[in-house]
Amino acid sequence: MTAFNVSPIRLPNFSRRIDAAESSAVREILKVTEKPEIISFAGGLPAPEFFPSAQMAEAFHHVVSTDGARALQYSTTEGHAPLREWIAQRMQAKGIRAEADNILVTSGSQQGLDLLAKVLINAGDKVLVERPTYLAAIQAFSLYEANFITVASDDEGMDVDDAERQLRENPDIKLIYLVANFQNPSGTTLGFERRQRLLQLASQYGVRILEDDPYGELRYRGELLPPIKSLDEDGIVIYLSTFSKTITPGLRVAWLVAEPKIYSKLVIAKQATDLHTNTVSQFAVHHYLTNNDADQHITKLRGVYGERCRVMLESLAQYFPTGVRWTKPEGGMFLWVELPSHLNTSQLLPAAISAKVAFVPGAPFFANERPQNFMRLNFSNQTPERIELGIKTLAEVIAQSELRNAA
Amino acid sequence: MTAFNVSPIRLPNFSRRIDAAESSAVREILKVTEKPEIISFAGGLPAPEFFPSAQMAEAFHHVVSTDGARALQYSTTEGHAPLREWIAQRMQAKGIRAEADNILVTSGSQQGLDLLAKVLINAGDKVLVERPTYLAAIQAFSLYEANFITVASDDEGMDVDDAERQLRENPDIKLIYLVANFQNPSGTTLGFERRQRLLQLASQYGVRILEDDPYGELRYRGELLPPIKSLDEDGIVIYLSTFSKTITPGLRVAWLVAEPKIYSKLVIAKQATDLHTNTVSQFAVHHYLTNNDADQHITKLRGVYGERCRVMLESLAQYFPTGVRWTKPEGGMFLWVELPSHLNTSQLLPAAISAKVAFVPGAPFFANERPQNFMRLNFSNQTPERIELGIKTLAEVIAQSELRNAA
Repeated sequence: MTAFNVSPIRLPNFSRRIDAAESSAVREILKVTEKPEIISFAGGLPAPEFFPSAQMAEAFHHVVSTDGARALQYSTTEGHAPLREWIAQRMQAKGIRAEADNILVTSGSQQGLDLLAKVLINAGDKVLVERPTYLAAIQAFSLYEANFITVASDDEGMDVDDAERQLRENPDIKLIYLVANFQNPSGTTLGFERRQRLLQLASQYGVRILEDDPYGELRYRGELLPPIKSLDEDGIVIYLSTFSKTITPGLRVAWLVAEPKIYSKLVIAKQATDLHTNTVSQFAVHHYLTNNDADQHITKLRGVYGERCRVMLESLAQYFPTGVRWTKPEGGMFLWVELPSHLNTSQLLPAAISAKVAFVPGAPFFANERPQNFMRLNFSNQTPERIELGIKTLAEVIAQSELRNAA
Repeated sequence: MTAFNVSPIRLPNFSRRIDAAESSAVREILKVTEKPEIISFAGGLPAPEFFPSAQMAEAFHHVVSTDGARALQYSTTEGHAPLREWIAQRMQAKGIRAEADNILVTSGSQQGLDLLAKVLINAGDKVLVERPTYLAAIQAFSLYEANFITVASDDEGMDVDDAERQLRENPDIKLIYLVANFQNPSGTTLGFERRQRLLQLASQYGVRILEDDPYGELRYRGELLPPIKSLDEDGIVIYLSTFSKTITPGLRVAWLVAEPKIYSKLVIAKQATDLHTNTVSQFAVHHYLTNNDADQHITKLRGVYGERCRVMLESLAQYFPTGVRWTKPEGGMFLWVELPSHLNTSQLLPAAISAKVAFVPGAPFFANERPQNFMRLNFSNQTPERIELGIKTLAEVIAQSELRNAA
């Protein structure tokens, strides 16, 4: 298949925002690592062998065969009303003060990022993010020509002292973006005192917080921490979550929680962006949630992913050379490895792929300056056996690289 | 349900683009007109009684139960490869030179509009549209702060002489947007010579054309005309179409056809916007298309909608007062009514709704100056009996308004 090409006609330039955008390096890597013979820690995929496929097949069949006239029709921009009610109750159970009127169903959490940028960010506006931060959030905000102010992070998540310094020095910061639970890529979790302090800082400096929480339900050990949004009495936090990790991602059904003033803006933006989230998946998700024990399914996932996380941590301890550090996630899907600073993970990747193991180099997860000695490892999408083998192999690749460096 | 409200904390401004956006007046109207006792010509809904619900229920059940690990998983930004192949063949059958690599599956055509604006439009850039044009295109482009240059249209669609004048006077126009077949709202179709001429003008002035073709399959009479894209040898036309009108809208599965240079930009934009279109609907659509006679279904729709269109046209001729003009669509879902210039359709609407008939006032379909004496009527979503009754009632509402004006 060759795509037809263009003629010599001189056409107008593309937009500045897209001319500045890079094709995702990670996306290109993922194409290579999809081959089954490669043990890939590169993607961010939930384990398909645990998808509730039979239940979802039943759910889709039921809603389309009994209620097709509504389930297949255009729908409201805000989302399917019974699903919004269900989500609002779920939010209340987490201590978040939300009614259905605060819930906007989105086409995946990625759309939540896009819509929030659309209603908030003028070209050049400042967004505060961690070092590292979620790659696709960088992409979403970059397309609205945001400037990033970055703050340090450690094993307890965002360094709030550094955040305060940046807020003081940059009074025009408009938004703080973070993943407080089991961050992507680092796997770290923001401690309770830091959550309180960050909210207080946002309030003091008049800045909104975007709390992106795709993994909150996937805690394998340690103490449950309240969402920042549950501490928010001033309506300054916008909260995102999704069914991608607890049911399945291919549905593209996620949601945001927001106070009325910004909510109405987000609805206008969503209407202009895709009219509404696909109706049939919303109906099927609601049917699944109300006719199955969704919490039992999540409990099962916690068991599976928790075991995979444990095996990866043990394998790292067993095989990885000294001088390498990694995070110890209490949940989620990722951990974050720091190699000695003279090593470059992008340069390491071809050797790893030759040895049939893959990871994502850490550089694209930094919004501004990009250190080269980090890698992100996903543990949700490989069996414990393959995780151990893959980590052992990766350790050998790193050791060989060190030998070459020493030579 | 009351949504929680905000505190006195002073938060940053919203973006300029969203501050300038209006909530859609049409959207508010549609909420009122959803009541079953109202004969609504206001919406743009396909007839749900003709949805292939049984076939789609089977399709969803089949793809999720037999291939859930893929159908429910994250997928590629470009779209499900077999579906893109199917679409490419369909495009070729229309004379459009496209391979699967030229097809980007989008979350509804609305997303096609959003993505194209995202990759093309800087704030203040000029987009040429008809008077009237598709309301949701105005909304999509407005959120990228486009300036609209409007050109006249008549019963044969866009006035290309006027278009040439505008292109000559505005050499910085970046994009021509139009619905060439059975336009929304006007129902008119761009003639063949005008298609050729418009393409030649776009080539001469170095401007892209966005050809939005949601209704092309729904022709009830008259001669089939080739898409402008099928005449395009220079890759300057981006073509949008959708399964919303030929299968069902709630799937949110549509596509665009573009040449490689802009295609790669659109993929980057889509990745940042929603990662990819929902996987399960793409699998189900492909299963439906390859296991059912989709063309026979479209033939059935043509029969049903053609009859409804004919009944509306006959009822208009029978009941509407002299001095009122309307278009005579050869396909699609809408026609366009011009009342005497002293009448205001927004002011007429409450009386119409009291009489249990609804329409959409024409003003929001104009990008710049907004004449008040037009209305859009949808004929796809009411039975012939209700269409006749509704038009008769609407004629009485207009006549009474004229009487009040005369008094």
